[in-house]
Amino acid sequence: MRILHVTEQGSTIRTTGECLEIFVDGLPVLTAGLHTLEALVLHGAVQLTAPAASRLLAAGIPSVYVGLDGRLKGRLEPIGHPAARLRSAQALAAADPVRRLAIAREIVRNKLTAQARLLRALRRPETSALLALIPRVRAAETLDELRGTEGWAGRIYFSALRAHLSLAGWRRARRPARDPLNALFNYGYALLMRPAILAVAAVGLDPYQGFLHHATRGQPAFVLDLIEEFRAPLVDLLVVRLYPTLSRDTGWFEQTEAGTRLALDVRKRLIAAFESRLSRATRYRPTGRREEVGRLFELQARAFARAIRTGGPVRPAW
Amino acid sequence: MRILHVTEQGSTIRTTGECLEIFVDGLPVLTAGLHTLEALVLHGAVQLTAPAASRLLAAGIPSVYVGLDGRLKGRLEPIGHPAARLRSAQALAAADPVRRLAIAREIVRNKLTAQARLLRALRRPETSALLALIPRVRAAETLDELRGTEGWAGRIYFSALRAHLSLAGWRRARRPARDPLNALFNYGYALLMRPAILAVAAVGLDPYQGFLHHATRGQPAFVLDLIEEFRAPLVDLLVVRLYPTLSRDTGWFEQTEAGTRLALDVRKRLIAAFESRLSRATRYRPTGRREEVGRLFELQARAFARAIRTGGPVRPAW
Repeated sequence: MRILHVTEQGSTIRTTGECLEIFVDGLPVLTAGLHTLEALVLHGAVQLTAPAASRLLAAGIPSVYVGLDGRLKGRLEPIGHPAARLRSAQALAAADPVRRLAIAREIVRNKLTAQARLLRALRRPETSALLALIPRVRAAETLDELRGTEGWAGRIYFSALRAHLSLAGWRRARRPARDPLNALFNYGYALLMRPAILAVAAVGLDPYQGFLHHATRGQPAFVLDLIEEFRAPLVDLLVVRLYPTLSRDTGWFEQTEAGTRLALDVRKRLIAAFESRLSRATRYRPTGRREEVGRLFELQARAFARAIRTGGPVRPAW
Repeated sequence: MRILHVTEQGSTIRTTGECLEIFVDGLPVLTAGLHTLEALVLHGAVQLTAPAASRLLAAGIPSVYVGLDGRLKGRLEPIGHPAARLRSAQALAAADPVRRLAIAREIVRNKLTAQARLLRALRRPETSALLALIPRVRAAETLDELRGTEGWAGRIYFSALRAHLSLAGWRRARRPARDPLNALFNYGYALLMRPAILAVAAVGLDPYQGFLHHATRGQPAFVLDLIEEFRAPLVDLLVVRLYPTLSRDTGWFEQTEAGTRLALDVRKRLIAAFESRLSRATRYRPTGRREEVGRLFELQARAFARAIRTGGPVRPAW
């Protein structure tokens, strides 16, 4: 069972019997058995014929609509699809303080595990201080206490990155970015949203129903939960590697009234490096198998779905 | 804000600017401002172009897919549509014993109100016995107690219908029908499902998350909840009127191993009478306004949505 992304602009999706066929300029370019599909993701101008929409719905296969800017637009879901039950279970788990805390704890533990892994790769002495906080995460009795520990870990972690980059006086601070390094982190974290939100939509979870995060100001709280453990390996590592070369170039950012903005060229480099990383292979820790990095979002979204349904754990991806 | 049904086979839905246009054989047959639409219902072979799907999703308008047999197939929903919050609230309300019981009580009260109304129209002396059960419905402290009262009311009600039809010894019994009158009731109640499930899907509630009913054997429990108060005025009244003439005709049903089946001609008459009733006007009790009978399903589904969101009451439709 797989999630099929249809990205070719102007293509048409038809179905014949038990097969799905994708046509571009009237020619078939791909055929897939319906039984092999878990979900379709339609990017931009991709046409689903009326009979194909009916057939996919009858076969229990949802379709996710995504704009060319990567923004999620909607989901075409069969009536009675298991995802409806999953989202009810997600709402119930989030409304139950005990279950909510249990899942939030695993989100933070996985985040700290990924942060410690990066600090160890950089041979930073702060690694052990960060790891020492994990028992506190496990023992946290309230969400506030948990977020306190997460914040404490963040200070250790970012001061280690600052020391690694020899940047005395720098501090991690969110939007608006007041310096180029914070602008790099912000831009990188924004890049994580696209693959994460697609994975959440394809698996059928509710993007707005978070555990660690609250859905404030229309933020997709569950997507923010999902990206926590992807920050260190996919963004921070990239930023730490790029920063020394970028900082030798005076034209790589601009100060505006709203804060520090990266130059277009730097944004493009960051996107290219990020996309290239998504297509590389890595070891997915829960199964030990080699997977495309981009697929880990989906695998972890499924792990959350299992945890919500069965009450089991969400093991670290990395 | 309205729910637009597109039933013309082979039609195509396009959008231009702030308008939706329906084309049949290349000619525009209907234009509607997007801001006037709450939802679209696509019946059978109705084509949504890729740009129209994008535009509708961007405008926050869901589309419901329905087969020509009237079966609900799926729902195309914009991400972050309020219906997602509504369904979470529905799952939470159904999981909360106090809220679940409160809503279930109103479903039963509205059902008994509609049953008593029919008995009064038939000048049956059992009317007052039925009305006397309503305080017991209000006082029910468990779902089982509530269902007990509902069953008691059902026995009074159906024995009144039996007396009205002068059918000594007849008893209401569900599937499989062992006699023609029960077959008429069963067939009629099945007809209620189509408008009810469309209303539930268009309003965006979860058809499977019931209050009075449990979702067993894949039954759309909430749809069963919604139809309770529609049984007496839309089906029972019809059956009571048709039965005397039908029972003079010996060929109107057939006995099979599986039970009693209505003749095709009788089924057609029942459907025609039911559809004609749906298109007639009636007074919708909560507002006092004249409405098409078929629209009451949607109005009551919205009343449930409000009750789920705000904790308010669901007043009887009739």
